[in-house]
Amino acid sequence: MPKLVDHEERRRAIIAAAWQIIADRGIDGINMRDLAAEAGYTNGALTHYFSGKDEILQTAFEHVIYSTNLRIAAGVGRRRGHAALRKLCFELMPLTEESTLEARIAVSLWQRAMTDPVMVRVNNLAVADWRTRIAGYWQEAVDVGELPAVNVERGVDLLMTAVIGLQVTAALDPGSLSRKSQLAMLDAALSR
Amino acid sequence: MPKLVDHEERRRAIIAAAWQIIADRGIDGINMRDLAAEAGYTNGALTHYFSGKDEILQTAFEHVIYSTNLRIAAGVGRRRGHAALRKLCFELMPLTEESTLEARIAVSLWQRAMTDPVMVRVNNLAVADWRTRIAGYWQEAVDVGELPAVNVERGVDLLMTAVIGLQVTAALDPGSLSRKSQLAMLDAALSR
Repeated sequence: MPKLVDHEERRRAIIAAAWQIIADRGIDGINMRDLAAEAGYTNGALTHYFSGKDEILQTAFEHVIYSTNLRIAAGVGRRRGHAALRKLCFELMPLTEESTLEARIAVSLWQRAMTDPVMVRVNNLAVADWRTRIAGYWQEAVDVGELPAVNVERGVDLLMTAVIGLQVTAALDPGSLSRKSQLAMLDAALSR
Repeated sequence: MPKLVDHEERRRAIIAAAWQIIADRGIDGINMRDLAAEAGYTNGALTHYFSGKDEILQTAFEHVIYSTNLRIAAGVGRRRGHAALRKLCFELMPLTEESTLEARIAVSLWQRAMTDPVMVRVNNLAVADWRTRIAGYWQEAVDVGELPAVNVERGVDLLMTAVIGLQVTAALDPGSLSRKSQLAMLDAALSR
């Protein structure tokens, strides 16, 4: 189905252009005309791929999560326990230029998710899924003695919430928390 | 100076109306006409107090921080060490209806702060100030043996970042984290 693939690829290219505009100018900077120009389409051609700004923002948000999950799958691989837990967190934390861009997109779109039932559902399902995976790997690590036998649920709450907070810090005050500090924070969360 | 006081009071009432609109409908729902109606002014009268939407959003953001700091001053009082640290965190965490509303405002406005130098500066100064106070109380608590002698800086990074993450959770998925879980998370962060 070359046509469908082509359609999907073009949608992805448009979303990539939308990410760049959101990251540079904020969500208020997104309008169909500028987005079409950035992506190399006319305004009319753009509506062939997206019905409007709402669909573009929803899709941009879904792609942040999709892209994170692709990296997680590659990073975690067949690891289990402590090694899997750390690799998973590495991909959720804004440690690279790519994941810092994603943090800016996420913070831009959370505001909209507050009043958009589709986006809030997408967000909360993704967080619940990551939380479940963190808890599973953490428990495996405790079971084989890689991590101390603490209350895993409390530890997961703290770690997951700190990872969410890191997106805000990366978007608003990137200079305040180096890669080294982030990794030390992860160690602190796991060493309880 | 009764006239000035009156002017400030009216600005505060308008900001309170703006908070309610942002919390209910999101930041995109804010326009001068609806805000004037909610606050009980004509559109023309409103411009006597605020030059426009930008100034209203900046002031709304400053008031979230101001209001939090008022509660912190009342909550902490003359406490020191562990007791002061907990009271400070109680006011920063979305534990009440009031602070959950503030969390919704903060998440709504962070997106704007990303591209507004005034707002990002206000945010980062407030966070740096809270961070410094948390570190000071934590060190006091370690010094008198109320908390274990761990690496305080790492602990503060983790706690401050988790507190920021809690604002997002309160705004997007309030059902996922009860008051009890939040308090247990605070204990977990402090018991490292």
